[in-house]
Amino acid sequence: MNKVIADITMSIDGCSAGHNQTEKRPFGDDGGDGSGARLHAWMFDTPEENRAEVDRMSAAGAFVMGRNMFGPVRGAWDREWNGWWGANPPFHAPVFVLTHHAREPQPMDGGTTYHFVTDGVAPALARARDAAGDGDVLILGGANTVNQYLTAGLIDELRLHFVPFTLGAGTRVFEGVPPLRLEQVATRSATLVTHVTYRVLS
Amino acid sequence: MNKVIADITMSIDGCSAGHNQTEKRPFGDDGGDGSGARLHAWMFDTPEENRAEVDRMSAAGAFVMGRNMFGPVRGAWDREWNGWWGANPPFHAPVFVLTHHAREPQPMDGGTTYHFVTDGVAPALARARDAAGDGDVLILGGANTVNQYLTAGLIDELRLHFVPFTLGAGTRVFEGVPPLRLEQVATRSATLVTHVTYRVLS
Repeated sequence: MNKVIADITMSIDGCSAGHNQTEKRPFGDDGGDGSGARLHAWMFDTPEENRAEVDRMSAAGAFVMGRNMFGPVRGAWDREWNGWWGANPPFHAPVFVLTHHAREPQPMDGGTTYHFVTDGVAPALARARDAAGDGDVLILGGANTVNQYLTAGLIDELRLHFVPFTLGAGTRVFEGVPPLRLEQVATRSATLVTHVTYRVLS
Repeated sequence: MNKVIADITMSIDGCSAGHNQTEKRPFGDDGGDGSGARLHAWMFDTPEENRAEVDRMSAAGAFVMGRNMFGPVRGAWDREWNGWWGANPPFHAPVFVLTHHAREPQPMDGGTTYHFVTDGVAPALARARDAAGDGDVLILGGANTVNQYLTAGLIDELRLHFVPFTLGAGTRVFEGVPPLRLEQVATRSATLVTHVTYRVLS
């Protein structure tokens, strides 16, 4: 059976994004320009060092993300929005977007199709599992989405990328999630990050 | 000049202890028996793996800790209490305890003397620096004490020991601390922990 993996970058005080997201600032008050560049400097400024971790993300058979990770549109889909990642998104696989507002699937270039799921986290995961075939399902974020899956006991593995700053305020991984027992299975550090993989025991 | 180092073990949701400390449960609701054994399993269950980190702590010239780390007595020193660590504590150096209640220094076996400082975090640090000679000063905790020193901009280096569980609730490192810029200077993992050392940039 495919593995369900949550993969998220967080400051060492647990924030995966700042508050006050807007279209121009997808990561909100992230201590920088709102682009998430500071949180994801390990990916973008030192890609060679971290190729293994990025390749591992890309290898998933299907992805799940929350509505806020997908875009700044709230409520009904009253304007065109096809994600922050342009015409050829880096997923190259089905992406299931959690939303309360139904929408037809949106195919993109390069094999990505956005599917919009309105009946909750478990049904979204079931569809992602089906779509992933033998591949893993990656729960990408944001924190609120990861937290819902952790609370529901649906995550097998947690891949955290700890980045060296604190944000002080923002959306936090683990907020409201009941205590988790974990097994640390791998750690690797690079210049701008420490990657740690945990198996979720309960 | 001696370096000021905060050294603290935390769950990956930032907790260094649970709530509801008592004399029998110094770490309160820590997900175990309240002894902190679960948080500090890396020290006690796998000491050989982590000797370098423990030796580095022991090497400090002086230590600072908060009143709650020292003991469960609140308010006036109305009963005998000489720390959780018995007659021969593992510090073997001066330990400055932050408190609002004056008390004479308490010498112990093995070179540890507890000094009680009532005029705040900066004076406590100044005294610890003097006492440390050329050695480093280690701010041991708890989280509330570390947070006060971080907020005051008095920490040069932060040594975090990330342990593989979440506590869900407890005293949290970084709570109320303004955003910190850090440089990750070293990472090492062992079976039950990932050690990361950060230089505090601002």
